[in-house]
Amino acid sequence: MAVYTQIPAEEMAELVLQFDAGKLISAKGIAEGVENSNYLVETTKGRFIFTVYEKRVDTADLPFFMAMIDHLVAKGCPVPASLKTAEGAATISHNGKSMAMMDFMPGLSVSHPTQAQALSTGRALGQLHAALKDFTLNRSNTLGLDGWLELAARCGDDLDKIQPGLKQRVADECAFLSANWPADLDKSVIHADLFPDNVLMAGETVCAVIDFYFACTEIRAWDLAVTHVSWSFDPHNAYLADVGEALVSGYDESFGRTEAERAAFSILARGACLRFLLTRAWDWLNTPADALVTRKDPMAFLTRLEHYAAQ
Amino acid sequence: MAVYTQIPAEEMAELVLQFDAGKLISAKGIAEGVENSNYLVETTKGRFIFTVYEKRVDTADLPFFMAMIDHLVAKGCPVPASLKTAEGAATISHNGKSMAMMDFMPGLSVSHPTQAQALSTGRALGQLHAALKDFTLNRSNTLGLDGWLELAARCGDDLDKIQPGLKQRVADECAFLSANWPADLDKSVIHADLFPDNVLMAGETVCAVIDFYFACTEIRAWDLAVTHVSWSFDPHNAYLADVGEALVSGYDESFGRTEAERAAFSILARGACLRFLLTRAWDWLNTPADALVTRKDPMAFLTRLEHYAAQ
Repeated sequence: MAVYTQIPAEEMAELVLQFDAGKLISAKGIAEGVENSNYLVETTKGRFIFTVYEKRVDTADLPFFMAMIDHLVAKGCPVPASLKTAEGAATISHNGKSMAMMDFMPGLSVSHPTQAQALSTGRALGQLHAALKDFTLNRSNTLGLDGWLELAARCGDDLDKIQPGLKQRVADECAFLSANWPADLDKSVIHADLFPDNVLMAGETVCAVIDFYFACTEIRAWDLAVTHVSWSFDPHNAYLADVGEALVSGYDESFGRTEAERAAFSILARGACLRFLLTRAWDWLNTPADALVTRKDPMAFLTRLEHYAAQ
Repeated sequence: MAVYTQIPAEEMAELVLQFDAGKLISAKGIAEGVENSNYLVETTKGRFIFTVYEKRVDTADLPFFMAMIDHLVAKGCPVPASLKTAEGAATISHNGKSMAMMDFMPGLSVSHPTQAQALSTGRALGQLHAALKDFTLNRSNTLGLDGWLELAARCGDDLDKIQPGLKQRVADECAFLSANWPADLDKSVIHADLFPDNVLMAGETVCAVIDFYFACTEIRAWDLAVTHVSWSFDPHNAYLADVGEALVSGYDESFGRTEAERAAFSILARGACLRFLLTRAWDWLNTPADALVTRKDPMAFLTRLEHYAAQ
């Protein structure tokens, strides 16, 4: 939640010219996105988000992300369009960093999604999946099943520093998922991180899906599971059935699932919980308690995991 | 440069209603202001900056700041107007914190001011001083001469950790300023922190002066000195005569100075340099080197001080 790369106004005015975005009027660094530095800029041509890619995004992946965004925009999905340079490039390089510029999308990221907002989000996710059916690029998921096993091993004994017994619980879950993972389900490029903060709402309706920097080729139905585990719980991690069901019915209505995908749902959701449990645990163990960045509690996703495991 | 108080969208929608600011459309935390948390919000009534006052602003001072802003707006100065609640209050209290909402002002904070931008800034500062002549509230300057002496004593021997010999140089300067401070010059409420980041420009013209949270009752001509020491040097702290002279002539044109104020200029500027040298030194000594907040180099203001001392 910080701006890592400070860009003086005079420099920003030059940079937006490279995207043929008009004359710079205003630029504010915004405290969003743990991965990148973002500026909300206003020019004589409109409002845009100017992104500086920081080290957590591999610049080799940028052509994939930008092509995916272009594809979704071309299909009419609610996704911010990316501007292009005179040479047709979606990113520029400046002071050794890659930068992009996209349409600013109005809307609010809600913290306590309503049933209607979840329904609209399910529909939007289905719309994305429909649009991505003929998207031909691929990016492997470093945070899939193999990645979790590796991350669990790297956390090792330290997991018990977060909560005694966590190491064993994670080991059991890794074993269960390795044995039961529905690897034969259809794969596709997916968003893979559709938390409420990556959806902008106008009232009860999705107006934009943002932040595609975890997008990858993965079991398609896992994307719905990721969305379900991140949307359908209250701040105390109690399951909100009305929200969870609305999300799934919105998705089924706009894209639909096979019988096998339905049957595997709770296993996919357990995998989604484990993924966020482990990445948060790793960050927790490697972020000083007094750092300015907020450490997200890994245990929230253990409570959620147990919800799906009990089904 | 961070958002210390995270406000969920649902809560923000309620808060802006208290300012009769319409229905919330968008809210982005902005990475500006080391003192407060700021959001750029868009509603059905326009764009605004929503500020949460954090601990470095004494809430007892808020009525002074808000009355000053209202006074300047009423006099036609380029200052963002503050919204009022139905009861006419300029601030609200929520979760134990004071909050205010002001018009969003377009414009860019420049990093390398041009001569024309300095001229416009000098004029704007004179316009503020003219408008404040009949402003009747007062706030004492905790960062005036007495405050510097106290801060120098608190930094103590640690000043030499920043640079060997700094303690003695500061002591000499404190002695010089104590003996020569032009305490009989006219006092007034002043901005006291008109650095380039507190001025928004459209091209070469000031469109807004912002951030009044150091405003206080002080020698009026010291405000021009603070502006001069913060605008008229390049990134290597070499004096930019054309910028410095343009600033002063803009001020003289719109407000003017007495002979005594002109004669005292370099002493006032030395005081301004010492003020920023000492507050930066204090922050430097009390901020871990690996903290996410940027520590500002105190030595920049020693180099600038020596420029004025050599005159």
